Amino acid sequence: MGWVHRRRDHGGVIFIDLRDREGLLQVVCDPDRAATFAVAEKLRNEFVVRVTGTVRPRPEGSANPGLASGEVEVLAHEVEILNAALTPPFQLDDENISETVRLENRVIDLRRPAMQRNLMLRHRASMAARRYLDANGFIDIETPVLYKSTPEGAREFLVPSRINHGLFYALPQSPQLFKQMLMMAGFDRYYQIVKCFRDEDLRADRQPEFTQIDIETSFLDEDGVREVMEPLVRAIFRDAIGVELADPFPIMTFAQAMRDYGSDKPDLRVPLKLTELTDLMKGVEFKVFRAAADLPNGRVAALRVPGGGTLTRKEIDDYTAFAKIYGAGGLAYIKVNDAAKPNEEGLQSPIVKFLSAEVLAAIVERTGAATGDLVFFSADREKVVNDALGALRAKVGHERGLAEPGWKPLWVVDFPMFEYDEEKRTWAARHHPFTAPKDGHEDLFETDPGHALAKAYDVVLNGWELGGGSVRIHRQEVQQKVFRALSMSPEDQRKKFGFLLDALAYGAPPHAGIAFGFDRMVAMMAGVEQIRDVIAFPKTQRGQDLLIDTPAPVTEQQLRDLHIRIRATDSAKHV
Amino acid sequence: MGWVHRRRDHGGVIFIDLRDREGLLQVVCDPDRAATFAVAEKLRNEFVVRVTGTVRPRPEGSANPGLASGEVEVLAHEVEILNAALTPPFQLDDENISETVRLENRVIDLRRPAMQRNLMLRHRASMAARRYLDANGFIDIETPVLYKSTPEGAREFLVPSRINHGLFYALPQSPQLFKQMLMMAGFDRYYQIVKCFRDEDLRADRQPEFTQIDIETSFLDEDGVREVMEPLVRAIFRDAIGVELADPFPIMTFAQAMRDYGSDKPDLRVPLKLTELTDLMKGVEFKVFRAAADLPNGRVAALRVPGGGTLTRKEIDDYTAFAKIYGAGGLAYIKVNDAAKPNEEGLQSPIVKFLSAEVLAAIVERTGAATGDLVFFSADREKVVNDALGALRAKVGHERGLAEPGWKPLWVVDFPMFEYDEEKRTWAARHHPFTAPKDGHEDLFETDPGHALAKAYDVVLNGWELGGGSVRIHRQEVQQKVFRALSMSPEDQRKKFGFLLDALAYGAPPHAGIAFGFDRMVAMMAGVEQIRDVIAFPKTQRGQDLLIDTPAPVTEQQLRDLHIRIRATDSAKHV
Repeated sequence: MGWVHRRRDHGGVIFIDLRDREGLLQVVCDPDRAATFAVAEKLRNEFVVRVTGTVRPRPEGSANPGLASGEVEVLAHEVEILNAALTPPFQLDDENISETVRLENRVIDLRRPAMQRNLMLRHRASMAARRYLDANGFIDIETPVLYKSTPEGAREFLVPSRINHGLFYALPQSPQLFKQMLMMAGFDRYYQIVKCFRDEDLRADRQPEFTQIDIETSFLDEDGVREVMEPLVRAIFRDAIGVELADPFPIMTFAQAMRDYGSDKPDLRVPLKLTELTDLMKGVEFKVFRAAADLPNGRVAALRVPGGGTLTRKEIDDYTAFAKIYGAGGLAYIKVNDAAKPNEEGLQSPIVKFLSAEVLAAIVERTGAATGDLVFFSADREKVVNDALGALRAKVGHERGLAEPGWKPLWVVDFPMFEYDEEKRTWAARHHPFTAPKDGHEDLFETDPGHALAKAYDVVLNGWELGGGSVRIHRQEVQQKVFRALSMSPEDQRKKFGFLLDALAYGAPPHAGIAFGFDRMVAMMAGVEQIRDVIAFPKTQRGQDLLIDTPAPVTEQQLRDLHIRIRATDSAKHV
Repeated sequence: MGWVHRRRDHGGVIFIDLRDREGLLQVVCDPDRAATFAVAEKLRNEFVVRVTGTVRPRPEGSANPGLASGEVEVLAHEVEILNAALTPPFQLDDENISETVRLENRVIDLRRPAMQRNLMLRHRASMAARRYLDANGFIDIETPVLYKSTPEGAREFLVPSRINHGLFYALPQSPQLFKQMLMMAGFDRYYQIVKCFRDEDLRADRQPEFTQIDIETSFLDEDGVREVMEPLVRAIFRDAIGVELADPFPIMTFAQAMRDYGSDKPDLRVPLKLTELTDLMKGVEFKVFRAAADLPNGRVAALRVPGGGTLTRKEIDDYTAFAKIYGAGGLAYIKVNDAAKPNEEGLQSPIVKFLSAEVLAAIVERTGAATGDLVFFSADREKVVNDALGALRAKVGHERGLAEPGWKPLWVVDFPMFEYDEEKRTWAARHHPFTAPKDGHEDLFETDPGHALAKAYDVVLNGWELGGGSVRIHRQEVQQKVFRALSMSPEDQRKKFGFLLDALAYGAPPHAGIAFGFDRMVAMMAGVEQIRDVIAFPKTQRGQDLLIDTPAPVTEQQLRDLHIRIRATDSAKHV
């Protein structure tokens, strides 16, 4: 049984490409079976049929090697139409359909072989995760979807309570505190493949509801988490797409990642590294470099592009424009015409004349620049240099054919506890406020919070963050110290997180966890750009489902039942 | 590592019952290891500890057969306190804690061995379901939580949209239409263990968010669904609690279930059946019976209670009061003092004198009443008789020791398509409006909708509905006929279900599905009365989570962002 993917009439015979989720099969309807042939003549694309017949090898020379079933065909004895179909709004193999049309006609769109493969891959990936986690003692425990508003995080979806006038549930951004409390309740190892919610302005690759593989374990420290979670990622990639990831994943500190790659999620397929030049530039005459090197949070760094000497003026300008997206004022560069002459003779650049022979020699030596290379420079606040050169590194690497193929996973560890929020003029948690500091680092909270490191870790793959987590705080007094460092008053702590502080007081075990972004992981494995292509019924960037047409108006009675009314504006709609 | 469940000091030695999710283990701390002993002396209940030591057999005669680890103990070499604990609000083995206190202190409550067992059982059950479904070609596909309001069903939770002023999402009562559209999209077999939502006034055994095993398959009819779904239920019971359910489950029509058991979910552990007497009573003098028998929708039926002759006046009165809950005016009864004399001599009852010898003899014969039995009678509208005698049958059966132990599954099939809504004076869908009629029964929609049967089926176990489903409509014109029978105008059909009608037009395969109430299924397997005991963080009957204290007030800014305001009343609260 299946769908008529295509019907061809050829030499008085009708050929049907019969489609189901596994692929296509050729069905042959001979005119000498008159009744069957008559039915076959009525078939149109997307009719649903039941075919009874004999499988036989295709005639000599007519095999289709591009098809899994290409060696055989079915000679139809009977064909029954289970359901007719109107002409679909687009052909399934037309690749030039706008996403709006695809989403409006999602039922048809999901029939496309690529979408069938993506969602079947997604299923294999989640089953692989479940099998591994089950075999390793993790228990699937469901946590509430009707949660509580915690306004400090991302913007939340609210759900008015009918029974409790004027009160609201919120949809959870993650089951973070529930999974920690499950550890405190003694469940030892928890997991859940769970929907989470974020009411943010949607970037191309975000959805208001998204899925996490959410995990927590008791009694393990950072090493222990890596030992249990690395094989999980390997199992998923193995079962879903037959790829064997490196064993073990390399481990890199946050500081090292920023220094060498300008990013906390470096794409290691690109072998290029940044070269540190800040110390070298502190004394130079060239003001742009010296000023940045002298800033307390300044940095001067270089990116060597092997063979970059062939870059045209236009290409260099384009890369410079790209770097500016990240706030860089511009990019200096040097073309290395002859590495043996690290001076105005061998180096071609407007800036060579501002730099001494010693500095130029040191640049060539440190970057390892060879004849025919080009070296880009960025000098600015550390953040700007890292963002600009980090992004440029990946872009240049892929565009210049310098990237290795395949999959390059790694752990990034030792993240900072806090980052400074310039706008609010307070310290904010970099991961979340329940993350444990490195041993002894809670002593830095009051004196030097910027240097306090956390027992936090990310799994990075090919420049994407696959997942992240941390060892959690399991002592009440440490949790209170963190809240204090985040400028939360004791009253506020109590009001927002009293239940957590209480739970910490009644025998909380050491515990740690991680969460993987499942949509992104599947999209990577499926080789698609956007997570909408691995979600059956996604929302648009305006949060709409174009198939069922939601969000939608509701009745006045429904609003009354929930004790709310809509604020008037010109654009307010309700029925 | 684990929790100090109990500490006992006995003969200068400290005994610790160390607890984790698997159970208890006895740890012995000898005073001759002074440092270890000193630590052990500090231990209190619910401290979290790491113990290093030697496993050894317990001394002769001190084994504890009540404990899985009762043959051994651990001689502690080292004891490390990983975290201290305040004295918990209640002892874990205290069974007399109010549910409010339990839910307020859910983290402690979940440590109780029974709760640990329940949630681990739940995990085993869901893994068993997933393994079976995966092995049988079902694909786990996630459907949206941010859905669309469809006001004809149960009351829904609404979620205001921030981006789309005045419009709302609704949380889904089930993924019904999404799973049907997945079949139309060609995925062939779908499943999801999925949260569903219902904003109803909560009865003791309802939760605002609950979990379904949700399944849909293409190309199968009723037999096919039973063939695939029965082994699923058996696999779950086998893997979760080691019980082997009957193979195959018996099959009973809805009509037969109502006739013999007065219920569409009969508890077959009780072997008693109702006896039909309506025809017999049409001519009798006794007005109560005759009037009911003559009603167009009336019924007179009997329930024989074997050995019921020993029931006291008080017991009979209590059963009569119970029957009145279901709307019965009362229960007539006859005590059978001598079955060989089916008259005023052998039968003891106020009603014997109103019934002829023939009728009395027929009653004794039809019910199979024997000396020492008692026969209850109910005469009223069919619904009242069925409800009253159906409930009485189960109650009497269990209370009088007539029930068999174990598990009695069955299929109930051939449900009516429609039921009449007296209040709205329209026909309503008994299952849902997407259910296919039995072949040919769509011809009854206009002439005799009350007798149109559906390809609907329930799985019933021990008097509970475990799950239910139906073959779905896959032809647009049949779907339109059903909508019409439900008094939906074409405009209304288009507005509410246009996307479904469209999808039916573009090649919809025959399909069918089922959904199992997972919370109830787990509660039954765990042997607990209420589903709150198999949910980690349940809500109270007022929809509150007493641990995290939600629903809760939100800020004015949050409401503004969502374009809503709270309607004023005296009790309105917001911050």
